[in-house]
Amino acid sequence: MTHPSPTVTTGPLPASRRVWHAGVLHPDIRVPLRAIDVHPTAGEPPVTVYDSAGPYTDPDADIAIERGLPRLRDAWIAARTDTEPYDGRHVKPEDNGFADGERLTPEFPVRHQPRRAKAGRAITQLAYARAGIVTPEMEFVAIRENLGRQAAKHALDRDGEAFGAAIPDHITPEFVRDEVARGRAIIPANINHPEAEPMIIGRNFLVKVNANIGNSAVTSSMAEEVDKMVWAIRWGADTVMDLSTGRNIHNIRDWILRNAPVPIGTVPLYQALEKVGGVAEDLSWEVFRDTLIEQAEQGVDYFTIHAGLRMHMIPMTIDRVTGIVSRGGSIMAKWCLHHHKESFLYEHFADICDIARAYDVSFSLGDGLRPGSIADANDQAQFAELETLGELARIAWAKDCQVMIEGPGHVPMHKIKQNMDKQLAVCGEAPFYTLGPLTTDIAPGYDHITSGIGAAMIGWFGTAMLCYVTPKEHLGLPDRDDVKVGVVTYKIAAHAADLAKGHPAARIRDDALSRARFEFRWEDQFNLSLDPDTARSMHDETLPNAAHKTALFCSMCGPKFCSMRISHDIRAEAQKEGMAKMAERFRDGGSLYVPLEEAE
Amino acid sequence: MTHPSPTVTTGPLPASRRVWHAGVLHPDIRVPLRAIDVHPTAGEPPVTVYDSAGPYTDPDADIAIERGLPRLRDAWIAARTDTEPYDGRHVKPEDNGFADGERLTPEFPVRHQPRRAKAGRAITQLAYARAGIVTPEMEFVAIRENLGRQAAKHALDRDGEAFGAAIPDHITPEFVRDEVARGRAIIPANINHPEAEPMIIGRNFLVKVNANIGNSAVTSSMAEEVDKMVWAIRWGADTVMDLSTGRNIHNIRDWILRNAPVPIGTVPLYQALEKVGGVAEDLSWEVFRDTLIEQAEQGVDYFTIHAGLRMHMIPMTIDRVTGIVSRGGSIMAKWCLHHHKESFLYEHFADICDIARAYDVSFSLGDGLRPGSIADANDQAQFAELETLGELARIAWAKDCQVMIEGPGHVPMHKIKQNMDKQLAVCGEAPFYTLGPLTTDIAPGYDHITSGIGAAMIGWFGTAMLCYVTPKEHLGLPDRDDVKVGVVTYKIAAHAADLAKGHPAARIRDDALSRARFEFRWEDQFNLSLDPDTARSMHDETLPNAAHKTALFCSMCGPKFCSMRISHDIRAEAQKEGMAKMAERFRDGGSLYVPLEEAE
Repeated sequence: MTHPSPTVTTGPLPASRRVWHAGVLHPDIRVPLRAIDVHPTAGEPPVTVYDSAGPYTDPDADIAIERGLPRLRDAWIAARTDTEPYDGRHVKPEDNGFADGERLTPEFPVRHQPRRAKAGRAITQLAYARAGIVTPEMEFVAIRENLGRQAAKHALDRDGEAFGAAIPDHITPEFVRDEVARGRAIIPANINHPEAEPMIIGRNFLVKVNANIGNSAVTSSMAEEVDKMVWAIRWGADTVMDLSTGRNIHNIRDWILRNAPVPIGTVPLYQALEKVGGVAEDLSWEVFRDTLIEQAEQGVDYFTIHAGLRMHMIPMTIDRVTGIVSRGGSIMAKWCLHHHKESFLYEHFADICDIARAYDVSFSLGDGLRPGSIADANDQAQFAELETLGELARIAWAKDCQVMIEGPGHVPMHKIKQNMDKQLAVCGEAPFYTLGPLTTDIAPGYDHITSGIGAAMIGWFGTAMLCYVTPKEHLGLPDRDDVKVGVVTYKIAAHAADLAKGHPAARIRDDALSRARFEFRWEDQFNLSLDPDTARSMHDETLPNAAHKTALFCSMCGPKFCSMRISHDIRAEAQKEGMAKMAERFRDGGSLYVPLEEAE
Repeated sequence: MTHPSPTVTTGPLPASRRVWHAGVLHPDIRVPLRAIDVHPTAGEPPVTVYDSAGPYTDPDADIAIERGLPRLRDAWIAARTDTEPYDGRHVKPEDNGFADGERLTPEFPVRHQPRRAKAGRAITQLAYARAGIVTPEMEFVAIRENLGRQAAKHALDRDGEAFGAAIPDHITPEFVRDEVARGRAIIPANINHPEAEPMIIGRNFLVKVNANIGNSAVTSSMAEEVDKMVWAIRWGADTVMDLSTGRNIHNIRDWILRNAPVPIGTVPLYQALEKVGGVAEDLSWEVFRDTLIEQAEQGVDYFTIHAGLRMHMIPMTIDRVTGIVSRGGSIMAKWCLHHHKESFLYEHFADICDIARAYDVSFSLGDGLRPGSIADANDQAQFAELETLGELARIAWAKDCQVMIEGPGHVPMHKIKQNMDKQLAVCGEAPFYTLGPLTTDIAPGYDHITSGIGAAMIGWFGTAMLCYVTPKEHLGLPDRDDVKVGVVTYKIAAHAADLAKGHPAARIRDDALSRARFEFRWEDQFNLSLDPDTARSMHDETLPNAAHKTALFCSMCGPKFCSMRISHDIRAEAQKEGMAKMAERFRDGGSLYVPLEEAE
């Protein structure tokens, strides 16, 4: 095995600039947004959108993967004086699956000393929020969520059905604090991952998207995974989960974390299983605990913990069409059966919280019994586990830990809302984080679409973050192209959900793009889209000439049949004549036909 | 311009056979279904699915594009003795846009004499249904909709929310007749298109998908369009609309019709506009009428008629973000403004019905004012036109004409149901036929997905047929690959809708595929999917060896982490121990944690 130095995609998206908004409470913070410039003929300001891409799209940023990103939050964390650096755990051979020599992925070249809470100090964003402290992280996300718009400017445009969500016209730092304090939102921000730009996950904020990447025993390498991470956030992923299995997990994760401007999540169980040679029965609390500390020191921002799967639920899965499809769930079920006792994740959940709170690692409580097929949706096993997840969320909160809840899976449309409603009812409004759900099982190869449908709907109903599904789901590991298609599909789902919830700023981009479309500003239409490169290249397949970019017609219809061109003529004619007069003349246009009832 | 002889894709889909079910009332009819064989180890019968692909997937069929398909319904039509052949209209130079010499697409080699109703006879499926006659077409679709299943076999599995739709456990020919008689369903079946295999569009039947193809002034040719038609139905399109503009419209349509086993729809206005040189103001009832007869004689099964756009609605569009985006709507609006009078489509709608009823051409009443952006959704203009479409539907019914209603367009999720409910309320339950709707404007290049979300939802709410949107929407004309992606995406949406409505047979395929997935029958998983070729090739990218097709793990996780493999181990262990005993032992597994309330 060779170890190519990672190369990643950099440079701005078309017509886009990274712009910065300063804090007020914390004047030293600079919150990045993306401004998309439109053509001067539009007479419109740039459209400001959320920017998850980090420094990679900033032409002024000095990117060096071997050095890692600037440590944005270092000063904020140090200023709080409630944490301290310490020596930390030493990397052990099993951390990398005993890989050595050529098979060992090189260590990340720079080593930072880990920090943890000072004894007796509660250093989580939840603890601060409860204490009434508005942290720089909270002000950062408040500014970020407002997308640069002024307070009440779009307040009159509110239009949506929010199903009980309460998104204010303007997000204040105090609102962020309050939502975090209530447990309705989390800011995943491990103190050992200061490179990350703070973001928030909650029902009263923009719907977020997670992208999964990860090495496996079968394929892939560190350089590819770093590249996929940067690629995923370029297209809008808000967090990235590193689901690596196989060898080199520790070192790959270090490369990813040191270069990730978004929170990184993991499933620590995967690495723990590698440490015991892949034998589920050999897992133990000690190995797992050691893995949690290892990953917390590296800076993992949230852990998926499958602590909700309890012994009495296992028989509930026996008659399922697809049994247990969660990897974590199946591993723990096997462990429970073998040892004839409740899982160490469940038994030690309070201990797990103690570790997480020392670093502010958030929890994503895993749905080990999520349905893997339409037939198994919303069954007894799934909902029994969900109730336990609610129980665990309350324990996490009692320990000052931030927590979200994972959800399905495969669910037909008519059962999606029941999932959301049940989650809200039994999990105390902890943010919901769902995989899809897939609305049918019959389209492997297109499961980004089968699940994008379900994701848009459950996002509308209140899910805070959508875990993407790529076209390769059920078939193989996503490559770079799959990652992009998955992210863009889920950005569509998240945005459709924001629109339907009536988010006060969501429609700004739709309207700007639609105006560009109606005014034949082709370049603006491309630049305002989620994927300008694809939009432009598809247009150019039919009409490649630059002249056509200013053409007053679409390539679909040609000039004669262009409805929008004709519509402009109509508008011009109507304006010439005076709309009021015209409307009046048409208002009572007589019907040639008899009233409906008589015609029958 | 050269005229390559059309070549189309033939041959069965993997592991699939065309199977035939005979009629009872009409023993001579043979209804095609597709049987997908599964591996003998499954111990399961073949899975029978709807088959829209026509003879092209039948290895025994003798396909010759220059000769056209067998004229399946000729004998049925002749046996009714209420129609007669006649000389028909002569093809005029303007029918092909005055194309000549090398620019003229050759005529279809075989000419069939057109038929029409004998004087005073009502020959539409609606007229027969009202007269209590169960036609061969009705029995054909009844058998087709049942997918070969027995009457009550799956009746116990009913699970869904149908929003007032009433899908019976078993579709009888009498049920079909009744639905057609009520106007709740249509069987688009021009007597001059006897090549088509009858199908039905209605809320109480499987949700259908339409694919648009068509030449434009800018690009494409006859051979490409015939190929796209066959390609679209191979992947499941139930009807195809030929939206050709530019030259050669007449001849291209003949090639398509003579080779189409599915109903073909058109927008006659497009050809009429070509006949007057593309000048909307020069359109007249005479030119339009002549075009209707031309197309009815050729065999077009349904006409989109934009008769609902009335003068007083035009001012309602002036403040829209995207004005009028329907081509037909914009053309007619321009005509109305220029002539300062109601459109000839509206004024002559009764005359249009008289033409359509002589051939049994169904109507798709066009939504000329459908919203072209999120901002314009559900506005006054859209709903005013919808009410007029309801008025026109009643006129069509009074004339024994079959009719469906077109719907939007661009609609955010929270406004989709309102569309469906309004359509049901004002259009007397005539089938709804929607384009998408797109749930956001910001993703050109991915509008199959933005609209697939809306299509699945509106299909669930009651839309009978979904008009596909391809990735090229707003950007260019779809090529062959786009057509496939569009069709498969919409088959997903339609199937997700059938599942959510609780269609009694919909889950059979999901369950069979999921069982195959759980049992690592990889080939079955591919073969049962909507697109076996893509599923197989994606799998093979990661694990190309044939041996891996029987591997007891997925390429995502490798053997150690395969949840389904572990799930099998669990099942085996559980069965060894005896499930009842195990369940009992686990049932009361004590909680380590205090009850929820106390933990807070």
